[in-house]
Parts: sequence; C-alpha cells; structure tokens
Amino acid sequence: MEILEGRIPVLAALLAKRRLFETVLVRQGTQDETIRPILDAAAVLNVPVRHVRPEALEARAHGKSHGGILAIASPLPAPAAPEKVDFALLLDGVDDARNLGFTLRSAEAFGVQAVWLRKRAWDFDGGDVSRSSSGAYERLPVFLGETLPSGLRLVGCVAGVRKTLYDEDFARPVALAIGGEKRGLSAAIRERCASLVSIPTVEGAATLSLTHAAAVAMAEVVRQRRLR
Amino acid sequence: MEILEGRIPVLAALLAKRRLFETVLVRQGTQDETIRPILDAAAVLNVPVRHVRPEALEARAHGKSHGGILAIASPLPAPAAPEKVDFALLLDGVDDARNLGFTLRSAEAFGVQAVWLRKRAWDFDGGDVSRSSSGAYERLPVFLGETLPSGLRLVGCVAGVRKTLYDEDFARPVALAIGGEKRGLSAAIRERCASLVSIPTVEGAATLSLTHAAAVAMAEVVRQRRLR
Repeated sequence: MEILEGRIPVLAALLAKRRLFETVLVRQGTQDETIRPILDAAAVLNVPVRHVRPEALEARAHGKSHGGILAIASPLPAPAAPEKVDFALLLDGVDDARNLGFTLRSAEAFGVQAVWLRKRAWDFDGGDVSRSSSGAYERLPVFLGETLPSGLRLVGCVAGVRKTLYDEDFARPVALAIGGEKRGLSAAIRERCASLVSIPTVEGAATLSLTHAAAVAMAEVVRQRRLR
Repeated sequence: MEILEGRIPVLAALLAKRRLFETVLVRQGTQDETIRPILDAAAVLNVPVRHVRPEALEARAHGKSHGGILAIASPLPAPAAPEKVDFALLLDGVDDARNLGFTLRSAEAFGVQAVWLRKRAWDFDGGDVSRSSSGAYERLPVFLGETLPSGLRLVGCVAGVRKTLYDEDFARPVALAIGGEKRGLSAAIRERCASLVSIPTVEGAATLSLTHAAAVAMAEVVRQRRLR
C-alpha cells in the first residue's frame, strides 16, 4: 500500500478512481466542511473515513505537508494506453521521487498526454511522487520502459549541441527525451532521437536541473503550437 | 555560521570569496586528488582543511548529498550593486529554501544579473539555498526588498490573465516578478507592474510551481533576445 498525503493528492486520487483505497485518515478536529470534496469523493467509492489523533497521522506521514489528510491506497495500476498522443515525454534517468513529481506536474500543465520512464529499477514511492506532482501523477498516464507509440518524433534535450530548442519545429507529434542530472541522456536514447537540441544558457553558470529543463522544453512545444 | 554541503557549493563559495570561512571539513579517506580544486581554493584563502570521521561530518550536515565535504562559513554579506542590470527577477513570497535555490540556479543559467526577494522575515538557511542552487547563490547578487534600479520594466507573471508571456516584448531591460505558490503575486507588486502576463497551460491540470513558472518565463526572455 502507499500513503497519499495532503488534500490535493488525496482528492486527485479519489477522483481519478485508479487506486483501491483502504481508508482516508483525517486529523481529529478537522471541520467536515473544509474537506467536503474529499468526503464526497470517498463516499462515492465507499472508502471509510476515520478521524484519528494528530500523533497517529504523523506516525504514518512521510512529510510535513499533509495538512491533516492521508489516504492509504494501492499503488497505481499500469495506465491504459491513451487514445491519441501527439505530445509525450521520455524521462531517461530521473532519480528522485520529487523530481519526477515536479516534472509530471509541469507535463500535465503543458498538455503532455503520456510519459515514459526509462529506468531499470522502479523504486519510487508513489505517494511521494503524487505529493510533489500536486496530484498530476494520479491523472497522467505514466509508463515504465521506452516503447513509445509509433509516429512520435523523438527530440532529445542535450547540453552543448549547436541546434537549439528554438530551431526545432514541434508541429509534428513529438516525444521530448530528457536525461537525468547525473548522466544526461543515455547513448541508447540519443541514437534513437531524430534531433538533438540544447536550451540556450549562459556559459560558466549553473546548469538547469532536469525538471526545469523539461519545463522549458515543454513550454516551447506549447508556444509553437499556439502560433499555428 | 552556515554549513555549506557538497563539492559544488563549497567550491563555488570558496571561489566567490564573499564569505568568511572557519574551516572546510573533509571525510577521512577522501583522496586529495578528487578534491584538488577545493583544496587549492582553500589554500588561497588560508582556510584550514580538517579531515574528520564520517560520523562527525554527518552530525553537522543537513542533508545527505554532501558527498564528504562541508564548509563552515559566515552568511553571505549583502551583495554589491551590479554595474548593469537589464534582466532581473523579483520573487514575491518564495517560502522555501529549496525553491529559492532552484530558482537562483535557473536565474543564473538564463543570465539574470540580480534577484530581489520580497519577504518580511528572512529566515532561510543560506547553506540550504546554496546547495539547491548548485552554487549559484554564491555568485548571483540577491537583495532583500523590492527597491529595484530605475529603468527596469516590471512584468508580472499571473495565472489567468489573457495576455501571455509570448505577447510581451522583452527587448527592453526587464524585471520579471514571480509570486509564491500560496498567494501568487501580491496586490502591491501587481500594481507596480507595467504588464501582467500568463504562461499558457491546460485548464483543469495542475498548475506550474513557482520555480518552473520562473524558469519558463526567464527562458522566454532569452529566446526573444537571441532573435535580435
């Protein structure tokens, strides 16, 4: 089972109806009216809601941002293949649940329809991912592996190549490939890319983190497509 | 005193020569050759380097990403006013050392010359900021307050306004104003903005975090200026 923490992830998970819920835990003293959407969604799914002492809640929480609400639920099942994908993300070597969560949050905001994670061992805690994704993880199809649907042009973001993000034409269906902070994009993925592009930054400065590079690249796809 | 953790922040701080250093702590068993730039920079400043047991290092570290290197140093002094500012950032309500650090990292990468923090109580730990900024905090002038140099056009990022980031002309000297996640941009700052713009995102999806909204907005300034 996984622990979902905080109102936004718990409500997102209940509304998405993808997990099996054991229970929702609410800190004693919380006014029902302040969590009405969560209570309503739990009732629809017949999920028991228990009011517990603050210490009991703290003992199960990973972080401090639960705001008095936890849910205990099954991990997310494998997602159904989305009907149409013209904007996807391939994350190659993301190594931290928070970074994954933040990237999923931005991905959903920018209209990405599916995400692939290339990683040998899947060992993120789904509750941690959900929390930092602000619930996006509950809604967005996230696949393990690197077998993308055909018809997607794979564009890799790599530091130092001359062609920039802004020289690329994102009109066609695209999957952006973003590498992890430690090793960047792997050789295996680079070789599959139709194009490699860089994000223009200042030399000698800190480099962008994976999650911020991903956000900037996704925003550019949206910018170009809005112009059409 | 503040604790700087990890090779990148410690080296950045030594090279920036803005802090007063008490000591650099190195985990026993670390080969000198692997930390040569840190040893050289410490020698230039006459900072003592002590090799200590792993437990002694752990006891002083905040996080787990120190990689065997800590430095104990004074907080950063107020920065000198930069000579020329045509690209600045005003952060209004950033509430977390990590978020501040990530934003400074992106800001440096995109060539921002100075950052202002509007916040009543400054209570971030400078070591935490430095770590998540990947050292950018040591180099970038960060001012407390909201008194920007004259001649900067203040452009505020606000969700939901019709004018987008891409409708704005960033040719002139600009300060981007970005609001915190809880309350967005304050009314006081909005009123001072010459223009308010939004970042186009999908309705009903998660919203962008402060650090990711900031990165996307800064990238757009760079994109436009590169076209000229």
